[in-house]
Amino acid sequence: MSGKTVFTEISPSEFFYRNRDLAGFSNPSRALYSAIREIVENSLDSCELHSILPELYVRVSYAPGEEDKQEPKRYELVAIDNGSGIEKEQIPRAFGRIFYGSKYKLRQARGMFGMGGTMSVLYAQITTSKPVEITSCADGETYHRYLMLIDIEKNVPSIIKREEGGSNGWRGTKVKLQLVGDYFRSAAKIADYFRNTALVTPYANIAFVDPNGRLLHFRRGTDEMPEPPKETLPHPHGIDVEAVKRLIRNWKGGPVSKFMTQTFHRVGGKTALDFLAYASVPPGQDPTRFGNDELVRFTEALHGYDKFLPPDGRCLSPLDEQIFTAGIVKELSPEFYSVVVREPAAYSGFPFIVEVGLAYGGKSNQPGMKLLRFANRIPLLYDEGSDVSFKVLTEEIDLRRYKVPQEAPLVMITHICSTKVPYKTVGKEYIADRPEIEKELRNAMREALRKLQVYLSKKGSMEKQRKKMNIYSKYMPMIARFSANLIGTDKLPDYNKLIGLDIFSEGESDEAS
Amino acid sequence: MSGKTVFTEISPSEFFYRNRDLAGFSNPSRALYSAIREIVENSLDSCELHSILPELYVRVSYAPGEEDKQEPKRYELVAIDNGSGIEKEQIPRAFGRIFYGSKYKLRQARGMFGMGGTMSVLYAQITTSKPVEITSCADGETYHRYLMLIDIEKNVPSIIKREEGGSNGWRGTKVKLQLVGDYFRSAAKIADYFRNTALVTPYANIAFVDPNGRLLHFRRGTDEMPEPPKETLPHPHGIDVEAVKRLIRNWKGGPVSKFMTQTFHRVGGKTALDFLAYASVPPGQDPTRFGNDELVRFTEALHGYDKFLPPDGRCLSPLDEQIFTAGIVKELSPEFYSVVVREPAAYSGFPFIVEVGLAYGGKSNQPGMKLLRFANRIPLLYDEGSDVSFKVLTEEIDLRRYKVPQEAPLVMITHICSTKVPYKTVGKEYIADRPEIEKELRNAMREALRKLQVYLSKKGSMEKQRKKMNIYSKYMPMIARFSANLIGTDKLPDYNKLIGLDIFSEGESDEAS
Repeated sequence: MSGKTVFTEISPSEFFYRNRDLAGFSNPSRALYSAIREIVENSLDSCELHSILPELYVRVSYAPGEEDKQEPKRYELVAIDNGSGIEKEQIPRAFGRIFYGSKYKLRQARGMFGMGGTMSVLYAQITTSKPVEITSCADGETYHRYLMLIDIEKNVPSIIKREEGGSNGWRGTKVKLQLVGDYFRSAAKIADYFRNTALVTPYANIAFVDPNGRLLHFRRGTDEMPEPPKETLPHPHGIDVEAVKRLIRNWKGGPVSKFMTQTFHRVGGKTALDFLAYASVPPGQDPTRFGNDELVRFTEALHGYDKFLPPDGRCLSPLDEQIFTAGIVKELSPEFYSVVVREPAAYSGFPFIVEVGLAYGGKSNQPGMKLLRFANRIPLLYDEGSDVSFKVLTEEIDLRRYKVPQEAPLVMITHICSTKVPYKTVGKEYIADRPEIEKELRNAMREALRKLQVYLSKKGSMEKQRKKMNIYSKYMPMIARFSANLIGTDKLPDYNKLIGLDIFSEGESDEAS
Repeated sequence: MSGKTVFTEISPSEFFYRNRDLAGFSNPSRALYSAIREIVENSLDSCELHSILPELYVRVSYAPGEEDKQEPKRYELVAIDNGSGIEKEQIPRAFGRIFYGSKYKLRQARGMFGMGGTMSVLYAQITTSKPVEITSCADGETYHRYLMLIDIEKNVPSIIKREEGGSNGWRGTKVKLQLVGDYFRSAAKIADYFRNTALVTPYANIAFVDPNGRLLHFRRGTDEMPEPPKETLPHPHGIDVEAVKRLIRNWKGGPVSKFMTQTFHRVGGKTALDFLAYASVPPGQDPTRFGNDELVRFTEALHGYDKFLPPDGRCLSPLDEQIFTAGIVKELSPEFYSVVVREPAAYSGFPFIVEVGLAYGGKSNQPGMKLLRFANRIPLLYDEGSDVSFKVLTEEIDLRRYKVPQEAPLVMITHICSTKVPYKTVGKEYIADRPEIEKELRNAMREALRKLQVYLSKKGSMEKQRKKMNIYSKYMPMIARFSANLIGTDKLPDYNKLIGLDIFSEGESDEAS
């Protein structure tokens, strides 16, 4: 019955050091995979935000003397991009501090938690104790290089050496680190990761060299890039009291009607006035003078008012039909494909767009249904069973309704893009089953399957026609001869015209979209 | 191609404010459930750590004027315990600061991330903007009460009012807050949560009053409590370079052989010397003088050496057969039950114990298999499909092998206790599929099912015997009369003795364990 309860404070680095499973760094195989993807995703974000066609080079090699050891063992990971680069003074903190990042915005990006790069450095350090080397050039003239570790207990970078030099026109970032990994157990996932990344990033050149010197090269298939994502204002439906308070704190002062139109997404003058009438707030009132109860009532009214326009998709950067199609054709070469891009929708005030691609048959498709999941252009490869796309596909879609055979060689590709993807883990493995997202997925999958059904039924009737033709072409000469005999002539009618495929076929083609 | 990348630093509170889905506070229904469980779990940890028989009172009521509104709406949550209480100066930080807690130890506890209490306060604040009221008494004499909010951007408590007074002998903590919740959608989960908590905490008195004034009362079924969990030394197999560095930094100096025995779990003098020979480190060397490469090699040797004793379970506090049985009998009243407690095992150097209970039939059991999952005495109610217990039960256990009918009314209860439960989310919903844990679960489930098989087969043969007896007792009088006639007497032999069940039955009883 004795004793005080002892409290301790730990730093964010310390927290994720102790609980690295939460961020996808559970074991050497998983950690190697996670380190690669976090660095690749930072690179792609950095390129796309500045409309730079990405050139990525990633190499995993055995650390000196490790080649013949048993797994897990030390690997060296090098990644070079041609992104926007990081300003000199930001480099150490960007990679040496948890909760310090460029991703804390209402904007579509692969990264969201702003800690993947630092987690990779942290994991490298705790398994090999070797400093990481970061080189970056933001102006195309001078590069800055840091050799550094993280002081985990303090959550600050600890710089060992810095240098700079001429970059010869190169702009971008290079990361070089040593970590304990298990390539044997992660090789397949890593290859899948690159393959799937290429599928939704057909405008990138990506070269990956594995520890045995094998090159996986994904060549750019199109020069067209999606529009860079824009930052957006918050939508009134998703906002909480804390956020309203902050918006008011930043408000320069003046009537609440003006505050509404300048602070919120898609609120115009008329909507503002209608809403304020609904909320019984005089339009001329200055929100900076709201008391606490007024603030809460105002926020509740924001949630309760059902005439705000839904968030629009202009701040989102979906793949769209053209880029999605280019990726599918380049990576899957299917016999048939279709791409469905849904209209923007919203959950809790966050806009999102669902895109679904479907590939049928072709050179690399195995029999049976395969699901490929993407969110903000990240391939999601773990925990499929908990993901919303899996749930919709297995529970709400009946392939038989679309006359698709059970063992048809089918790939269903889902892409959800949003200013905030509702991941359930920091490791970004899977997406929560928000009903709004479920609905969009369901409709998109059904539409894609209906297109497949049309294709398959045409293909089926075409084959029936071909069979019919075979029979016709067998019997037609006999009928012709019989008819000729009947009218007492030796000259056979020209039946070849009749068995030309073109008059029986129904206008099918090998591709539909 | 222009523009700097803008970096921002955010506080831990800010991070979890923005990403509250990660901590189980995704929406009003889930948040109400999470707030209750986080506070209840802190209370139970606080009692058990000091061997206090828990008395918990939890009440959810409509906030004033909210009763007739639509869900989600404002609720008041009050929770009172008789735990160890919190020292005056710790109270505000314990509830007002993320990454400040009493749970950052190598010790079995429900809490692990040390942020549940603060998350509940934070969620309350961002949905209702009302301060939380925390009252605690650590000495049984004076209570201290704080009315406070969290400064989320700074991650510090912001105290509005403090007071103190005589506690009249009460020791413990009381939390009172207002939050936006959805009781209608969470009522079933909350009731399940309390019911399942009572199942594995039969030594607690728990009273829950719902918004409609209904009382769920779980009365103490036993006064026996598990031993309080003890802190343990780290095991050499799970340790990383960073942790070894810290141990050496705290080492008072002196030979590495002594460092080994005083710093690591279950390393005695002989093991230390054998290991140092294996690692080619002279036993007299002072580890504080290790260079970086020596440190890494030393850590690698710790992982590679396979003769360390496995972690022992003395630092763990399983339910054990008696308490587990008391809980099952009290809450499920089954026709048959069995409890299997496995020997301690380890994953990545963390000790764990698997316990499995099985309940068959009885008053409240529905047909079909039901799985109840627990970890460090927390019921896990979400994401069953991703949990290791579900995986083992559905993929590796074949009920037919144990002659258990498909629709048998069966409850399988798994309890994993460890100094570090490998949760995959901060919300503690489900456990990763570590192979070591899978193996223990598989063996425990199989053993429990074998016991059920024995029971069912006895019950089956008993029923056969009863049927046989029915036939005997029908024909016996006729046989007796026939035999009497045969020897020419009118006096029938006393056949009643022969059909007494006791000589035919095989010693079954209604209960086995």
